[in-house]
Amino acid sequence: MTAAPTVVTVGTSLLADAIDEQAVVARRVDWQPPMPGTADDLAAVAADPLRAEANARAVAAYLGVTAQLVDVLPASEALGLQRGDFLHAGPPIDWERASGPMRGALMGAAALEGLVADPEDAPAFFRAGAGAGYTLDPCHHHHAVGPMAGVVTPSMWVFVLEDASTGARTYCPLNEGLGKVLRYGAYSDDVLARLRWMSSVLGPVLQRAVRSAGPVDVTALLAQMLQMGDEAHNRNRAGTLMLLRDLVPAMIRSGSRAGDVADAVAFVGGNDHFFLNLAMPACKLALDAARDIEGSTMVVAMARNGTDFGIQVSGTGDQWFTGPAQVADGLYLGSYGPDDANPDIGDSAITETAGIGGFAMATAPAIVRLVGGSVPDALATTRRMGEITLAENPRWTIPVLEFAGTPTGIDVTRVCRTSILPQINTGMAGRVAGTGQVGAGLVTPPTEIFPAALAALAERAHERAAGRAPTE
Amino acid sequence: MTAAPTVVTVGTSLLADAIDEQAVVARRVDWQPPMPGTADDLAAVAADPLRAEANARAVAAYLGVTAQLVDVLPASEALGLQRGDFLHAGPPIDWERASGPMRGALMGAAALEGLVADPEDAPAFFRAGAGAGYTLDPCHHHHAVGPMAGVVTPSMWVFVLEDASTGARTYCPLNEGLGKVLRYGAYSDDVLARLRWMSSVLGPVLQRAVRSAGPVDVTALLAQMLQMGDEAHNRNRAGTLMLLRDLVPAMIRSGSRAGDVADAVAFVGGNDHFFLNLAMPACKLALDAARDIEGSTMVVAMARNGTDFGIQVSGTGDQWFTGPAQVADGLYLGSYGPDDANPDIGDSAITETAGIGGFAMATAPAIVRLVGGSVPDALATTRRMGEITLAENPRWTIPVLEFAGTPTGIDVTRVCRTSILPQINTGMAGRVAGTGQVGAGLVTPPTEIFPAALAALAERAHERAAGRAPTE
Repeated sequence: MTAAPTVVTVGTSLLADAIDEQAVVARRVDWQPPMPGTADDLAAVAADPLRAEANARAVAAYLGVTAQLVDVLPASEALGLQRGDFLHAGPPIDWERASGPMRGALMGAAALEGLVADPEDAPAFFRAGAGAGYTLDPCHHHHAVGPMAGVVTPSMWVFVLEDASTGARTYCPLNEGLGKVLRYGAYSDDVLARLRWMSSVLGPVLQRAVRSAGPVDVTALLAQMLQMGDEAHNRNRAGTLMLLRDLVPAMIRSGSRAGDVADAVAFVGGNDHFFLNLAMPACKLALDAARDIEGSTMVVAMARNGTDFGIQVSGTGDQWFTGPAQVADGLYLGSYGPDDANPDIGDSAITETAGIGGFAMATAPAIVRLVGGSVPDALATTRRMGEITLAENPRWTIPVLEFAGTPTGIDVTRVCRTSILPQINTGMAGRVAGTGQVGAGLVTPPTEIFPAALAALAERAHERAAGRAPTE
Repeated sequence: MTAAPTVVTVGTSLLADAIDEQAVVARRVDWQPPMPGTADDLAAVAADPLRAEANARAVAAYLGVTAQLVDVLPASEALGLQRGDFLHAGPPIDWERASGPMRGALMGAAALEGLVADPEDAPAFFRAGAGAGYTLDPCHHHHAVGPMAGVVTPSMWVFVLEDASTGARTYCPLNEGLGKVLRYGAYSDDVLARLRWMSSVLGPVLQRAVRSAGPVDVTALLAQMLQMGDEAHNRNRAGTLMLLRDLVPAMIRSGSRAGDVADAVAFVGGNDHFFLNLAMPACKLALDAARDIEGSTMVVAMARNGTDFGIQVSGTGDQWFTGPAQVADGLYLGSYGPDDANPDIGDSAITETAGIGGFAMATAPAIVRLVGGSVPDALATTRRMGEITLAENPRWTIPVLEFAGTPTGIDVTRVCRTSILPQINTGMAGRVAGTGQVGAGLVTPPTEIFPAALAALAERAHERAAGRAPTE
């Protein structure tokens, strides 16, 4: 048999169309020119003698982490938070620039901590400015992550994850469920009552079980979830169920009241997203190991505060590169529509930074019913993310792609060279404080933060070449 | 743009090769001639005036069933089994023709019921022949199904499933786990001790929970499993976890001892196949609704006893069409190999009969690591099963195939016309009694049972046309 000719076409479709008319099979490949104005910086970073090995080290460090759930603690104890300390999602922000859902979550948390009698009194409290009785700091600056508004205060309980080989730790609060919840900016009485029950009952029940049955290997559970239709950002059903499987016998045996245990199991089992708050700190723990490697162009955090979208890159330390958060394109709950949605918010894009979530949608095709898009889109998205990443993760594989590893280690240079942006899937908060969730959808970072990060990497390479910066 | 010509080629590849050489896109479709000797019977059945509507009614009856877990009972109570009654998988068989694993399971069950002091005394007991203190009957003759050897005796507890709209019921024993277990033909002391614990602890714990929290909608759980990488024959992990999620709060609250509840949760959670024994009776309940429709060519049961493979067809009542069970092609545990494997055994092919299991492998690509084959094979298998089935199931969808329904209602005429055999995936029992599981793989029924069933359908059509049989 004579093989049919195969022609690969990129860019403008004129050639492909012409070939189609000649009845030749054309495999169309997305191709776009590099991001405008990045040619010199791309050349400078490509010439950086540290880059290749630095990225190899960053990927190896990332892959070397096994994240284990070792404890459940109040944030006061785990993170040293004191009365008046507030952590939040995304890059730094103050009250004045905070969006509706971020303000709503801060208002509810202020009431939860007894700093104000009523959430409606909180705006005046926060307008007085940081220093007047409160601090406001990104979760990411405290080895923590929080979904959506990501507000963490001392009385909230957090999961404690630890890398067995280094002892490094990360933290994330417990997941409240969906709908009207604090992280989506709701702060009504039922929201605060649920948070109080989580601190007085759920946290202690989980603590006793984890101390008795733990540690729980979250990295391994993530590997199994990817075989079970979870991409671990907006589908966490299998992960939640496996967590219950692993903890329930110890929950029953470790001395908690039977009624409390039954309530805790029903609460966790009724919330398919409960495991998200373990996936996120597991991703952060792995990515933190890849931080601060001179010359590495690997993204180690993507996070949004509802106003700004920020990234951090291994080779540029703790610097944030930020731009305006975008509104997701997706599906809405009930009668909500695009006008009701706040721009992108939350630290949960740490999952995409680690190669799951939107990057692993191929393994979770059912998610298109939640976030929109089509099944072929979901498969194509994972393949496309392979264009902007440094490696595949051999522990996290995608059966339907013949067990290909998840696309791992977003490379600033590849993003700038291909103009392919990381694909994030996300919940959408109502833009008015107090609303809660209004939908879920697909979103990307603002384009300009990648050329900005690239410029900083190029500048460091220049400085090093000129002997004005450390070479290691 | 001018659309390229598309040519569909079947059969010999000469045409396709010629077209390839002309650079036209050819979509190759597997095509084989009808099974030898079936031309006249195919024509007779095609001309049967009852066929189309009978098959439509059979499919509608199947799709109309919602299987709910309503109780957990000893088989003595649920099935009226008395001391000395044995049920087994597959079509009827006696001791003399029984394979090793079937004999092993009967030996263990005879000891479990106190009919012999030691399993090794059981062969003499059974060789005395049915009537000499025991009965041996297929599960299928008692609205029941059992995986592998499928031996059910009075002291074993069974799930009770009920169709809410008709009150029809089906039954299946509780799953023992993997490895050395009775259903794979093992009968050592630990096997019998586990069965005694299942009857004294697990069954009663589950009974109290189901009576308190039930009914559990098994049909709906199956729909969710298909979104979570389970095909519900050899992958039942998500189903098992969802069952725990739904029952654990009631297990804790319904008055069982805490230690027993913890043991039961650990046992179920430690056995990813536990849900198989709910999937099977749910499939049987739906298929039983499609039985006994004059003129229908739909298969309503496929079952194997380790010696024979049998099918029953809606339009031919309770008649079994049997041929020799095949040895699966697959992957082996430990040092076992093909010489250690018994031919195909068990009622679990009721899952494929209902359109899941091997028919739904596209939704469970990870299963190729257990049963062999490749991911593209798994996807192709589900599409191929669409060629021999009457409908798609709108409640059981496969996300990766853009939410296509599972291929539903195996049609004897389509099997004979296309020569495509139903694809089953299965565990493999050791051929020597007492061994247990040796592997898992892929298998088909023996070809000749489909022409035999077709001939019986053609004969009935002739009889009806001649006025010698009922027309309804």
